[in-house]
Amino acid sequence: MKKYKILIIHGPNLLLLGTREKQVYGTATLPEINKSLAKLAVELNAELKIVQSNNEGNLVDSIGTLGVNWADGILINPAAYTHTSIAIRDAIAAANIPAVEVHLSNIYARDSFRHTSYIAPIAIGQITGFGIESYTLGLRALISRLSKSAKSRGKK
Amino acid sequence: MKKYKILIIHGPNLLLLGTREKQVYGTATLPEINKSLAKLAVELNAELKIVQSNNEGNLVDSIGTLGVNWADGILINPAAYTHTSIAIRDAIAAANIPAVEVHLSNIYARDSFRHTSYIAPIAIGQITGFGIESYTLGLRALISRLSKSAKSRGKK
Amino acid sequence: MKKYKILIIHGPNLLLLGTREKQVYGTATLPEINKSLAKLAVELNAELKIVQSNNEGNLVDSIGTLGVNWADGILINPAAYTHTSIAIRDAIAAANIPAVEVHLSNIYARDSFRHTSYIAPIAIGQITGFGIESYTLGLRALISRLSKSAKSRGKK
Amino acid sequence: MKKYKILIIHGPNLLLLGTREKQVYGTATLPEINKSLAKLAVELNAELKIVQSNNEGNLVDSIGTLGVNWADGILINPAAYTHTSIAIRDAIAAANIPAVEVHLSNIYARDSFRHTSYIAPIAIGQITGFGIESYTLGLRALISRLSKSAKSRGKK
Amino acid sequence: MKKYKILIIHGPNLLLLGTREKQVYGTATLPEINKSLAKLAVELNAELKIVQSNNEGNLVDSIGTLGVNWADGILINPAAYTHTSIAIRDAIAAANIPAVEVHLSNIYARDSFRHTSYIAPIAIGQITGFGIESYTLGLRALISRLSKSAKSRGKK
Amino acid sequence: MKKYKILIIHGPNLLLLGTREKQVYGTATLPEINKSLAKLAVELNAELKIVQSNNEGNLVDSIGTLGVNWADGILINPAAYTHTSIAIRDAIAAANIPAVEVHLSNIYARDSFRHTSYIAPIAIGQITGFGIESYTLGLRALISRLSKSAKSRGKK
Amino acid sequence: MKKYKILIIHGPNLLLLGTREKQVYGTATLPEINKSLAKLAVELNAELKIVQSNNEGNLVDSIGTLGVNWADGILINPAAYTHTSIAIRDAIAAANIPAVEVHLSNIYARDSFRHTSYIAPIAIGQITGFGIESYTLGLRALISRLSKSAKSRGKK
Amino acid sequence: MKKYKILIIHGPNLLLLGTREKQVYGTATLPEINKSLAKLAVELNAELKIVQSNNEGNLVDSIGTLGVNWADGILINPAAYTHTSIAIRDAIAAANIPAVEVHLSNIYARDSFRHTSYIAPIAIGQITGFGIESYTLGLRALISRLSKSAKSRGKK
Amino acid sequence: MKKYKILIIHGPNLLLLGTREKQVYGTATLPEINKSLAKLAVELNAELKIVQSNNEGNLVDSIGTLGVNWADGILINPAAYTHTSIAIRDAIAAANIPAVEVHLSNIYARDSFRHTSYIAPIAIGQITGFGIESYTLGLRALISRLSKSAKSRGKK
Amino acid sequence: MKKYKILIIHGPNLLLLGTREKQVYGTATLPEINKSLAKLAVELNAELKIVQSNNEGNLVDSIGTLGVNWADGILINPAAYTHTSIAIRDAIAAANIPAVEVHLSNIYARDSFRHTSYIAPIAIGQITGFGIESYTLGLRALISRLSKSAKSRGKK
Amino acid sequence: MKKYKILIIHGPNLLLLGTREKQVYGTATLPEINKSLAKLAVELNAELKIVQSNNEGNLVDSIGTLGVNWADGILINPAAYTHTSIAIRDAIAAANIPAVEVHLSNIYARDSFRHTSYIAPIAIGQITGFGIESYTLGLRALISRLSKSAKSRGKK
Amino acid sequence: MKKYKILIIHGPNLLLLGTREKQVYGTATLPEINKSLAKLAVELNAELKIVQSNNEGNLVDSIGTLGVNWADGILINPAAYTHTSIAIRDAIAAANIPAVEVHLSNIYARDSFRHTSYIAPIAIGQITGFGIESYTLGLRALISRLSKSAKSRGKK
Repeated sequence: MKKYKILIIHGPNLLLLGTREKQVYGTATLPEINKSLAKLAVELNAELKIVQSNNEGNLVDSIGTLGVNWADGILINPAAYTHTSIAIRDAIAAANIPAVEVHLSNIYARDSFRHTSYIAPIAIGQITGFGIESYTLGLRALISRLSKSAKSRGKK
Repeated sequence: MKKYKILIIHGPNLLLLGTREKQVYGTATLPEINKSLAKLAVELNAELKIVQSNNEGNLVDSIGTLGVNWADGILINPAAYTHTSIAIRDAIAAANIPAVEVHLSNIYARDSFRHTSYIAPIAIGQITGFGIESYTLGLRALISRLSKSAKSRGKK
Repeated sequence: MKKYKILIIHGPNLLLLGTREKQVYGTATLPEINKSLAKLAVELNAELKIVQSNNEGNLVDSIGTLGVNWADGILINPAAYTHTSIAIRDAIAAANIPAVEVHLSNIYARDSFRHTSYIAPIAIGQITGFGIESYTLGLRALISRLSKSAKSRGKK
Repeated sequence: MKKYKILIIHGPNLLLLGTREKQVYGTATLPEINKSLAKLAVELNAELKIVQSNNEGNLVDSIGTLGVNWADGILINPAAYTHTSIAIRDAIAAANIPAVEVHLSNIYARDSFRHTSYIAPIAIGQITGFGIESYTLGLRALISRLSKSAKSRGKK
Repeated sequence: MKKYKILIIHGPNLLLLGTREKQVYGTATLPEINKSLAKLAVELNAELKIVQSNNEGNLVDSIGTLGVNWADGILINPAAYTHTSIAIRDAIAAANIPAVEVHLSNIYARDSFRHTSYIAPIAIGQITGFGIESYTLGLRALISRLSKSAKSRGKK
Repeated sequence: MKKYKILIIHGPNLLLLGTREKQVYGTATLPEINKSLAKLAVELNAELKIVQSNNEGNLVDSIGTLGVNWADGILINPAAYTHTSIAIRDAIAAANIPAVEVHLSNIYARDSFRHTSYIAPIAIGQITGFGIESYTLGLRALISRLSKSAKSRGKK
Repeated sequence: MKKYKILIIHGPNLLLLGTREKQVYGTATLPEINKSLAKLAVELNAELKIVQSNNEGNLVDSIGTLGVNWADGILINPAAYTHTSIAIRDAIAAANIPAVEVHLSNIYARDSFRHTSYIAPIAIGQITGFGIESYTLGLRALISRLSKSAKSRGKK
Repeated sequence: MKKYKILIIHGPNLLLLGTREKQVYGTATLPEINKSLAKLAVELNAELKIVQSNNEGNLVDSIGTLGVNWADGILINPAAYTHTSIAIRDAIAAANIPAVEVHLSNIYARDSFRHTSYIAPIAIGQITGFGIESYTLGLRALISRLSKSAKSRGKK
Repeated sequence: MKKYKILIIHGPNLLLLGTREKQVYGTATLPEINKSLAKLAVELNAELKIVQSNNEGNLVDSIGTLGVNWADGILINPAAYTHTSIAIRDAIAAANIPAVEVHLSNIYARDSFRHTSYIAPIAIGQITGFGIESYTLGLRALISRLSKSAKSRGKK
Repeated sequence: MKKYKILIIHGPNLLLLGTREKQVYGTATLPEINKSLAKLAVELNAELKIVQSNNEGNLVDSIGTLGVNWADGILINPAAYTHTSIAIRDAIAAANIPAVEVHLSNIYARDSFRHTSYIAPIAIGQITGFGIESYTLGLRALISRLSKSAKSRGKK
Repeated sequence: MKKYKILIIHGPNLLLLGTREKQVYGTATLPEINKSLAKLAVELNAELKIVQSNNEGNLVDSIGTLGVNWADGILINPAAYTHTSIAIRDAIAAANIPAVEVHLSNIYARDSFRHTSYIAPIAIGQITGFGIESYTLGLRALISRLSKSAKSRGKK
Repeated sequence: MKKYKILIIHGPNLLLLGTREKQVYGTATLPEINKSLAKLAVELNAELKIVQSNNEGNLVDSIGTLGVNWADGILINPAAYTHTSIAIRDAIAAANIPAVEVHLSNIYARDSFRHTSYIAPIAIGQITGFGIESYTLGLRALISRLSKSAKSRGKK
């Protein structure tokens, strides 16, 4: 079974997780989220590279290098840039590999400007509202999609 | 470990799955989806009741009886009613138990009238775009939430 | 004095009244509301037929039969269908008898999608926000209107 | 039983009632409305002070003095100011006593700019479309609310 | 010449035709419309199954069974559901056979909420405003389309 | 020839005319405008009563008394209240006599919030942009309309 | 039986039919459409005058002369002017004879700016999406309406 | 006193005046309007050239030749093109002479799409609702403006 | 150093400050605010005239007299009229002296209809959210602006 | 090298170029623009036919004849029709040859109604803001596109 | 008295202050602003750290480190990011300390896209339009708020 | 002839050109574009500095340094930041030198959120849809503008 390479992208302010606004984002810290993902990656036979930046341009850089040259898929929590960044959308579209968008909080139960995503229309799908599990479910979904595509290619 | 009771709601037109518009909804049939859910339910120690109806009122009835008197949580694919039914939203809000909204297709990559959900703001979260796996990921997320709530209650 | 025949229509989710979301809808149950209406009907010399359904189509059926062939007036709490049902509006318009729209909660103090009514423009009037009394006030208003119309016809 | 003090507010142009545009507002004159209210006040053991002004500022004055220092509740037909006066809304909110909004005509069957009310969201409820009875039903609803609140305070 | 099987769908409130609001919908009753269609079906060598329901879900059921398993084409007057039902749209799209949308009245000369149709974009075409003839013209158009498609398939 | 009684209404801030913002409103002062109107009234055999107030309520008062009990027509420059006062609109509608709306400046060449008028739809017509002549043209138009109506009544 | 005079109006770009964008407009040429109409006119005992112009003003001219002085009814495919021409709407309204609007393509399945028609609200009805048959169905509908009106006049 | 040259522009459908839709546009015919204008021109010492066309382009032509090379001012009733023609607006702006916009009917009391004018923002002013007098008042206003400008130039 | 004359304008409902809705507006009363302003005026060598009215027209009057004839600058808390009064805007624009707009509460953290100000675009600036200090900061800013303008005039 | 045939279309009011509103459109006259284009055409080995009309319909005619039967590409400055003409858009789409849209002024720095173009979405591209050079750059771009397409066809 | 630690944030393009677009932003340079703030900090016994960046991500970084771990309050001029950055809003909300938003120019007198702020709703308040004094007033307001909060905590 | 200094700005994701999404952006790589520009610069006697960044802030930095202190003009393809960056707009406005905006693809034929540009209103003009030639045409246009301005300065 192929070992999939997954680029994990954490958007702005996620370094502050677990210490602030816990009623919105939960108590898990970013290291804990990464640990959970790493553990699941072992189970699912995946290799992860993890990037966090508060900087829209850096995220575009990472997708434009790792997403284009290394990864088989992208798992991204674009955080605030979900609603404002066409540049990240274009980077993912250019990378042309499956992407899954995740959110810790339920963005549809918050401010109306958080109800639209520039990323979702070019992602496979979106998982929102399950805290740390949004990430692990997203990783499962991404690996599963990659496996299926591989199988259907294998059959041909 | 407690055995959670989960009400599975399938909205309109889902009986036709797997035979029509496969490019949008995939090839899984509704019985196959239900079988996958049943299998996962065993693994997660959950009990399922499954309802499908093309009828908004019947779905409200089911939530108003099973959701209110029997279930610990609701897993719902409201299909077309996602975007038009305040009645289903009100039923779930009245049931006052955790609900997870799932969609086979990525609704954010389709017609603009499919980009809004009356259900999402009162659900825990939403999973969209992963075909049959939207359901299984949703069931995992729902059981996990119920377990955590139980634990946090146990601690007090 | 004529005994007026009044069709009472309760929309979706009203069976759950009094046990759930009491802070929004109050503590009265639907049977209690119906008892209050029945008591007032005696006082006002009216005859009631009461229909509750979670189903838009059944409500249209009832208005299309009882509203058209039996009733002198309609007292309706369309609940969630207030904001989404053109079919119920058309049924009332077709019945062509006076209708009064009532709401337990103050819909103008809730979600913005609850601020518009398809029914109100073709009703005599609307009463909103007084809990169980929205119904009893509505019945008074309806009987009073029917009496006045009868008088003014009597005069001619 | 407590005698409730009710401030009755009539908004602009209501002095002209009963002589003009009868097809919209009915044939009752303002003195007749006031007489009906006075009669009902005796029945309900309420004391009324009645204010009419065409002047937004005067209405704010009255609410800011009588509403704040004397009244237990407010019954208001804001007429044209319903749709344009944030100042009256703020005055009622500052007075912090229950208010009922009434309209002679069915505002939802008229010009679209009459479909929104700045007052309704901070009132208990709204009664619209029943001519002079909008007022008497409103007074009943207001007294009833005050009595219930008193009872529930008495119980504690 | 092939005998085409046509599913005729009548939406909500159409049972009341010919007795109410004649100035809007004309004087033809539903049985008269059905008789006209039956007569024309003989002329055009078509077989009809006719469904009327006030219930969105029942209409979806009929399309999901008869539309999917029996019919060659659908002639539908969705009435009020024209403007509110994504479920019926999805059912027709799933049935994947030619559909023609008809309306007795000219919906573009009525309330603005009647100017949009969820059905039209996935139908072959729409005929509106000709009373009972909207149906007969629609049946002609549908049979004609089916014949042409057959011919063009025959040529290949 | 009948002597028509015309109520002239000047809205807010018009006392300041001719001394401020001359590039927008021109150099004529309010007394000069009134003098021009008075002179023209003699020529046209009309009697004028002139009201200026910065107060919406006072303007409503004047229309509700003079407009209702004395005047044959109203010539009004509602100034800033053009765009915000439903109360003045309702007063004029209640007075039920011909009204002409005038503006010194061309409101369609200024801020977009000045492009809509609550008054215009219930006036005979509107004259905008001609400085002091907007008033004199408006008075001509109003008297002319009154004369024609009288003639057509005379013919019957 | 009366011979009805029908003005056929073809809007801009229709001369190019059948040679370009066949996937949108079909393969029929304008002469073929006119021949079909002529043939049907014989069957229905109608007399046709046919006008095509790319020029909004010429179409207004034709309606203002032939529509006003000669025709009993108008069959019009306004093409691109459907969505932009108030002048053609006003011309038809001025002609004050029944008009039927037709479109070759299904305008509701195309660009959103093609979803609104200035003509439809003042036409009897609209037929859209059936290629050349939109015209022949439209002619049938128009003659039928004229016959019925004549009959109902005959009865009085 | 200078003799001003005025270009009178009549927009589409105005040839039909006085015979059709009299309740909207009044009974005056276009020749009668022109006669009134001619008579007033004598009084005001003006020379008129009058153009009527149903054709937007012809109107642009006339303004681009006569408006640019001959006229001192433009009096225009753009009729339906008021709301749709940027080309006529640009022509008037290019001519760079004072223009007055007039309308027979009160456009603010009609369809909402008639409430906006592309012409008004670049005209001196607008006169609407006074039938034939809209034109004569407009001519007075235009000549008056030209005279004043001449005087103020004379003073410098 | 020049002693600046400042007109302080308090809008509607501000008399109720400090006793009601303290969580929104703070605990300072209007006399306390005025005392703070008076004290600061001494420090800044300014002379104050203070007006409070619930009446839009009175506020326009004050600006039209004191603002035009006496004051060097205006410090205004328009309260509810911020969002609805074009008349006050026009009065300040006519007065043509520097104005500073202040708000006790943060209007951008409240109802969306409080997010727009008719006054702000014609003021120097706006200070919002600092309770009583919004006023004192505003007075500082206003005096400072007047001093600078004086200096820059002095330099020329 | 092939000699490309290019249809140059100048929209309304462009005859007035260079003499009026020079601050917006520059000082070049239409003959000067045409001369520049002719000169460049020699350099680029292209043949030009040039059409100017103030008439939307004439422009459609030209595109429908020359564009369809003669030209290899279209260079168009639709001027005011850019924002209002679906007919010209449809004509270009029907001609089905490459088109380049040019504007003398920067339409994005002018009135907001000039920010949208019906033509741009079906053109290759748009050049706006460079005065006469918008045309010459556009001609270069068009010829270049035609050459490239020819080359890529040559390669197959 | 406590020495408050204040993080000063200058958004994009503020390095260019005082040399460019002085008519909009005034003549003060950024070093001058910082000097004024430093001087006032001494007076108010505050300690400042000052950050300027053109980079949204860097500003988020600074708030996420200094704002979270060092500062008692934030004084921010987000400049262009005011209207586009949800990431900065989220950072401030996460820092959970009082923030004051300032602007040199009056943003409400400029382009409409500058009238909304993502920051204002989560700040204490906003000061706009006073040039360099917007900053010094803002620092005063911030320190004052911090002192008051401290006092009210001290009292408990 | 003066040698103009031109700052070339490439926005986000342009490093990926020519390898991905070629159907949208063409096959040219960024180095190829730069080479074309360099070659043309020689021909036009211009000196280029070229900046590419995925980072909005870096682009602002470059414009704020090179644009302000070195360049005579700016040629910018803002890519995704076209539609979201007010900071880049403000930087260019501050630099106060001529800027030309270019796009490889026709942004008006893509997603609707790509139809608006924050940059265009403050640029000289915009060139969109011509692939690599958008850049070379843009450079020509920019140099031409600079030359003309120099000439017209020379003449004075």
